[in-house]
Amino acid sequence: MSKSISSVQNPFIKQLVLLKEKARQRKKTGLFLIEGKRELSLAIKGAYNIDTLLFYPELFSESEAQAMSQYNIEIIEISKEVFQKLAHRDTTEGVIAVVNSKHHTLEDLKFESKNPLILVAEAPEKPGNIGALLRTADAANVDAVIIANPKSDLYNPNIIRSSVGCVFTTEIAMASSDEAIDFLKKYNFNIFSAILQESEPYHSQDYTLPTAIVVGTEATGLTKEWRKAATKNISIPMQGEIDSMNVSVAAGILIFEAKRQRNFK
Amino acid sequence: MSKSISSVQNPFIKQLVLLKEKARQRKKTGLFLIEGKRELSLAIKGAYNIDTLLFYPELFSESEAQAMSQYNIEIIEISKEVFQKLAHRDTTEGVIAVVNSKHHTLEDLKFESKNPLILVAEAPEKPGNIGALLRTADAANVDAVIIANPKSDLYNPNIIRSSVGCVFTTEIAMASSDEAIDFLKKYNFNIFSAILQESEPYHSQDYTLPTAIVVGTEATGLTKEWRKAATKNISIPMQGEIDSMNVSVAAGILIFEAKRQRNFK
Repeated sequence: MSKSISSVQNPFIKQLVLLKEKARQRKKTGLFLIEGKRELSLAIKGAYNIDTLLFYPELFSESEAQAMSQYNIEIIEISKEVFQKLAHRDTTEGVIAVVNSKHHTLEDLKFESKNPLILVAEAPEKPGNIGALLRTADAANVDAVIIANPKSDLYNPNIIRSSVGCVFTTEIAMASSDEAIDFLKKYNFNIFSAILQESEPYHSQDYTLPTAIVVGTEATGLTKEWRKAATKNISIPMQGEIDSMNVSVAAGILIFEAKRQRNFK
Repeated sequence: MSKSISSVQNPFIKQLVLLKEKARQRKKTGLFLIEGKRELSLAIKGAYNIDTLLFYPELFSESEAQAMSQYNIEIIEISKEVFQKLAHRDTTEGVIAVVNSKHHTLEDLKFESKNPLILVAEAPEKPGNIGALLRTADAANVDAVIIANPKSDLYNPNIIRSSVGCVFTTEIAMASSDEAIDFLKKYNFNIFSAILQESEPYHSQDYTLPTAIVVGTEATGLTKEWRKAATKNISIPMQGEIDSMNVSVAAGILIFEAKRQRNFK
C-alpha cells in the first residue's frame, strides 16, 4: 500500500509547489518536477534519477505507479486537489515526478561519434524557442547542445513542456560563452557562428568535420566573442522584407544542412 | 487639426474593440486592426488599404500621423485610456490602424517567377506557428503561401504579432485542401507532401521545377488527399526519441532545401 497525501497544506507538497514555481528552489535542492507519461519515460530513458512519483488514481492507476518501483522510486497517492495544485498543464495524465537535476557541465559531455555535430545556442530566452531547439536537436540526433550564457534553468516547466521531453533525450551542457569556446577549440571543432553581417552563405560551407553551429538571440544576435572565435561566420540569405527569422527555424535549417552533407549518418 | 476621441465609451471605439477581439466581427466588416510602426509600414508596402489611423500623442507625434495622410487616411487623436483599450501588446508605439482585409483567393495569386516555389500549410492552429511560417516564407521570398482548410482568420492579433508583420509581405491564399490541390495541378506544380510514413527522404528530391511544399499539423499530419495528390511524399529523417518536429522548423528545413537547390534565385 503506497503512502497518500490529500492536503495541499502538507509541508512536502508546499515544497513541491516551490519547485514548480521557483528556479531558485530548483537550484537550491537540485530537484525539479516532471509531469506526464511521455516526459517521465523519456527522463528514465535519459538516465535521470527519479526521487518520488505522485499519482492521482483517477487518471493514473496504482499498478502503473507500482510498475515504476523497479526504479526504486517512492510512490505517493495524491488527491485531486493536490494534483491540481502541482500540475502545470491543463490536460494532464495524473502523474508527477520529483527528479534529480543533472549537472550539465562541458566536461560531462560524452561523444559517441568521432565526428560530432553540436548545436550551440547563446542566451536563448523564450521557453518555446528553447523547446523547439531541443526538439530539433533530438530529431537530428546531434551529439550535444551547449547553452552558452544561459538565461534560465533547463527545468522550467515551460521548457520541459515545449520540448515535449526532448530536454531529457539530448546531451546538454551549460556554460559561459568563453568556456564553451575554449572547450570547442580544445577539441578542434569547426565553429560556424550564425551572424547576419559580414558572413558567408551557410550553404557553401563544409560541415562534415567536427562542427559546432552557433546561434544567438533574435533581438541582439551573437556576442562578439563568437564572431572572433568562428572558423567561419555564416548566414542564411534573407530575401524578404524582414531581416530576422525565428531562432529555432534558423537553427533547424543550419543543422539539417549539416546532416544532409553528412548523409544523415 | 485632427479629430480626437477620449472616451472608451465612444461607439466607434467600441466597434474597434470588437474588431480586435472577434474573428466574426472582422469577417463581417472586412476590417481589422494593426498596431505598431513596423507592422503599419509593412502593410502599406504590401498594398493594404488603411481606413483610419489612431494615435496617442505621447507615443506617436501628430506630425508622424499627418505624414500618413498622403495615403488618404482619416487620422484620429486618442487618449491614453482609449489607446490602452485598443492596444494588444504590452510594449507599443502609440499607433493603431483600421485596415481593410484582402480576399486571399487562389485566383488572386500573382506569380512573378516562371518557376514558383509555394509553401502550403494545412490547418495550422497555433498563432505562434503561423507567424513563424510566415516569417520563413518572407525570408525565403517564396512566391506564395496557401493556407489550406484554415482554422482561423489571418488577422488575429496574435498572428500579426508573431509574424512581425510578415503576414503583410507575402502573397497568401486561403482555400480548402481540395481547391488548393486543383489549383496546384492546374498550374503543373510538383506537390511534395510532408508525411512521415511511406515517404522518401526530402533531400533526395528535385525542387527546381514549380514546387509546392505541403506541411500539416503536428498532431495529425496532413489529410489523406494530400498524400494522394502528391508528386512525392517526403519526410525529414528523424533520428531521435521523438517522431515530430515543430511544424515551422520542418517547413523551414524543406523550403530552404528547395532554395539551396535553386541557388537562392
